[in-house]
Amino acid sequence: ELCAALAASFAAGALAGLKVVVSAGPTYEDIDPVRFIGNRSSGRMGFAVAEAAAQAGAEVTLVAGPVALPTPPGVARRIDVRSAAQMLAAVEEAAADADIYIGAAAVGDYRPQQVAPRKLAKQGGAGLTLTLVENPDILATLAARPQRPFLVGFAAQTHDLAAYARDKLQRKGIDLVAANEVGAGLGFETPDNALTVYWADGLLELPRADKRELARRLVEVIGERYRAVRG
Amino acid sequence: ELCAALAASFAAGALAGLKVVVSAGPTYEDIDPVRFIGNRSSGRMGFAVAEAAAQAGAEVTLVAGPVALPTPPGVARRIDVRSAAQMLAAVEEAAADADIYIGAAAVGDYRPQQVAPRKLAKQGGAGLTLTLVENPDILATLAARPQRPFLVGFAAQTHDLAAYARDKLQRKGIDLVAANEVGAGLGFETPDNALTVYWADGLLELPRADKRELARRLVEVIGERYRAVRG
Repeated sequence: ELCAALAASFAAGALAGLKVVVSAGPTYEDIDPVRFIGNRSSGRMGFAVAEAAAQAGAEVTLVAGPVALPTPPGVARRIDVRSAAQMLAAVEEAAADADIYIGAAAVGDYRPQQVAPRKLAKQGGAGLTLTLVENPDILATLAARPQRPFLVGFAAQTHDLAAYARDKLQRKGIDLVAANEVGAGLGFETPDNALTVYWADGLLELPRADKRELARRLVEVIGERYRAVRG
Repeated sequence: ELCAALAASFAAGALAGLKVVVSAGPTYEDIDPVRFIGNRSSGRMGFAVAEAAAQAGAEVTLVAGPVALPTPPGVARRIDVRSAAQMLAAVEEAAADADIYIGAAAVGDYRPQQVAPRKLAKQGGAGLTLTLVENPDILATLAARPQRPFLVGFAAQTHDLAAYARDKLQRKGIDLVAANEVGAGLGFETPDNALTVYWADGLLELPRADKRELARRLVEVIGERYRAVRG
């Protein structure tokens, strides 16, 4: 309790006066009116980041995929979406005048090429081939703008995490990547997480903690890096 | 309140002394450690049926897919599963000495032919083809047994509902089909539902009601039809 209170006071003010957009949760890509492709994101990390950013003084807009989570205290605005395309549209609108965008959502990389208007019936043992196309990349879309917010991405991987995170930083042209290993009781669908934060010429390890505590530490780092880059 | 109490008292005893297995919720079929194919079932209808069956005097085992619902009062045993294969295994074990099986789960018809051991990385715009194979049919598997419980299936369709339900009844060799139209504010992800119950030589319409009320009426019909067929 004391520890949490201290951590909260350290983080307080780290983002004072800044407009922050946080995306959180999974996206669901419909196959037909009943079936969809989803992912295991619970949204808890993103919701914790939104709460920590609000505690740190930011005006927070939370863009949430399909999750069963209440809006964290202090969050100014919440926009609920389902698909990656809907999330991109909501983020683009919200991020137009934002200082920082934190992409904590697990945006589906792929969607079915066509959404069937009726429920697909079984073919009597024949199987089914599903053709998927890539979804637009929200961070890369924002990074390509002449006037863009400070961009924070997340990377969740089962392997080669450091290389993947560094590559994501460069390839997408973003400012910070918070990377976490999936599995070993960490990451998706678990209360705890651990992160390594990468930027162009540095990194910081945030050891295993519950997601709210970890979110407070991450928000401090984001505040520091934002000030270092944007003054 | 009075209405609900009356309905509860009508249903009471309809399944007294019977062992009933209810499956509920969606199944999730993993594509890789992060992605899966799911469906929109909330599990609410199946959980309401399990509760109503317990109220009607049955010893209820509830086999639940991934849902965020508490175990209903009176349910004797709950088994949580994720995939269709896991659900089949749990139902086969639980139904071995059951009198009635009520298949209210929205079991995924298809699963990926292979589950990737690592998260599939984006291919740089190339898209992805997913080959799906049919899952085993739980009701048909039970129906093929020499000694089988009284079998109740559900049918959710966006179109041609009556024909679909009759076909399901015959094709799978089951005793009762509870059919509901998806869409128009009914069915998946909604509090209300309406059902038409089909059996070999009859049908009964259960008009729109909240899922708990509807579940009580359905349990009464199941009790009547069970006694008509099995004495």
